[in-house]
Amino acid sequence: VTGEFALIDLIHSRLAGPPGSGQVWVGDDAAVVRVRSGPLLLTADTLVAGVHADLSLTGVDDFGWKALAVSVSDIAAMGGDPAYALVAVSAPAGTDFAALFDGLSEAADEIGCPIVGGDTTSAGALVVTVAVVGHCDGDPVLRSGARPDDEVWVTGALGASAAGLRLLRAGAAATGEAAASMRAHARPQPHVAEGAAARRAGASAMIDVSDGLTADLRHLATASGVGFNLQDIPRAPGATLAEALGGGDDYVLAFTAPPRTAVAASFAGLRTPVRIGRCTTDPAEMTVDGNEVEASGWEHRF
Amino acid sequence: VTGEFALIDLIHSRLAGPPGSGQVWVGDDAAVVRVRSGPLLLTADTLVAGVHADLSLTGVDDFGWKALAVSVSDIAAMGGDPAYALVAVSAPAGTDFAALFDGLSEAADEIGCPIVGGDTTSAGALVVTVAVVGHCDGDPVLRSGARPDDEVWVTGALGASAAGLRLLRAGAAATGEAAASMRAHARPQPHVAEGAAARRAGASAMIDVSDGLTADLRHLATASGVGFNLQDIPRAPGATLAEALGGGDDYVLAFTAPPRTAVAASFAGLRTPVRIGRCTTDPAEMTVDGNEVEASGWEHRF
Repeated sequence: VTGEFALIDLIHSRLAGPPGSGQVWVGDDAAVVRVRSGPLLLTADTLVAGVHADLSLTGVDDFGWKALAVSVSDIAAMGGDPAYALVAVSAPAGTDFAALFDGLSEAADEIGCPIVGGDTTSAGALVVTVAVVGHCDGDPVLRSGARPDDEVWVTGALGASAAGLRLLRAGAAATGEAAASMRAHARPQPHVAEGAAARRAGASAMIDVSDGLTADLRHLATASGVGFNLQDIPRAPGATLAEALGGGDDYVLAFTAPPRTAVAASFAGLRTPVRIGRCTTDPAEMTVDGNEVEASGWEHRF
Repeated sequence: VTGEFALIDLIHSRLAGPPGSGQVWVGDDAAVVRVRSGPLLLTADTLVAGVHADLSLTGVDDFGWKALAVSVSDIAAMGGDPAYALVAVSAPAGTDFAALFDGLSEAADEIGCPIVGGDTTSAGALVVTVAVVGHCDGDPVLRSGARPDDEVWVTGALGASAAGLRLLRAGAAATGEAAASMRAHARPQPHVAEGAAARRAGASAMIDVSDGLTADLRHLATASGVGFNLQDIPRAPGATLAEALGGGDDYVLAFTAPPRTAVAASFAGLRTPVRIGRCTTDPAEMTVDGNEVEASGWEHRF
């Protein structure tokens, strides 16, 4: 691929056709889509090669997958349903666009969130921004609704991504448990159905675990004015407690719900949520198994 | 500014409050917005410092302005009405975020397209992607609807941005005509009202002039299967014909309409459109004042 317009042809070849009548695919100035009535969710996340992924350890196709998955995860964290994605790629010469868009389109297909447009530009670094528009059948779950005594839940075990990265860096063999962790790191799965289930169950607040469990719960603490007493954090096989608490990039959802909410009923057939503690009245409080923990997790420096 | 969360506070301080009830501002996982019924327009454009703007000639605030304006221009080119913007910024250490978001928010305020969310990441280069969601009261105007004998119109004079860039590079004094060109280069104005007027008038196809008039009309030619005989291209004061035809970055709209369409009536109170020619049957044909022209304009190389 040498020119922008040849590249656009390559991208088109990797995307499925328009998903329905009345829709205009990539190639016009803007995509034309139909949306359901009700609130619309809008989000955009950016991945930078070398910052959010080490492309000597995972593939450019994985990078594309992850870029779409992490934006979808933000929709999941509101209890919403991803509908359409826009993909903006800035890339240096020599970038393997075919692999990048393979990963993007595999994620779009598997998640059910078609890519309807975007932009490609040349730049010194590979930077991919994915904007996602989502629906929500009901009131979106915000970060600000947690109340003291609410129970805290997560939709899966934590630390797999950090453990996978550690194993990739060590050159470990990709077998069994190690392979699963590596895959969790390379191709995170947004918990879309679980987010909607938590919303239907009556979740009071929700966030996806991208920076790290305690760091992300601090965002909930700030928005809701509650603290957290946590215990028995479910760890992914092979993950350390530090990786489970601070590793991030798991895209499990953490949510709160009033005491005695019948959470399990909404999750039939989905990943089983695990209760990990309770909200307290002091927003500065964050304990795990009785020990005070510092905020940890990823923060960009400028 | 040293950390991401301090930066997010800075960004919030530069954005107006939520524009209405039922809306969640930046700071949750996704923004919650209400949209009107009818088709929704989605677009995303990326600006890379050093590629799309020379920050030794124009300010970081201008870069922010332009990033929002060019995405809005894509909505204008469909005859739509911009509603909400998401801003994703990747930036190196030392970036003047205050100035960047001043420019972004000035454009958002002036255009009436509030920034409702986004992302900030650290990266080696300043890369800004703006995704815009827009409404359209009626059928969006595509690139593919032009027919032979349709008349070709532009919503303003061309070449101002290229002339302004030339003058900035030459260190010309920013007075009079030169100042206007420089400002057109630094802070392009999307023709939102004119795009809607062209749609209401019955435009058959439309595109915004970002790559250059002839390059962008080639996109229309490909999508519609028509050629173009053009003449008397309106030039911005001080712009050469080459700058008017190939300079790009003007964000004037070019549209086609069936012969004898009463275009002017829809444009009362707006920029007066200028008729510049006619569509022909041969998609390979592109003449200006009787001379065959090569495609010219910007194409990224990878």
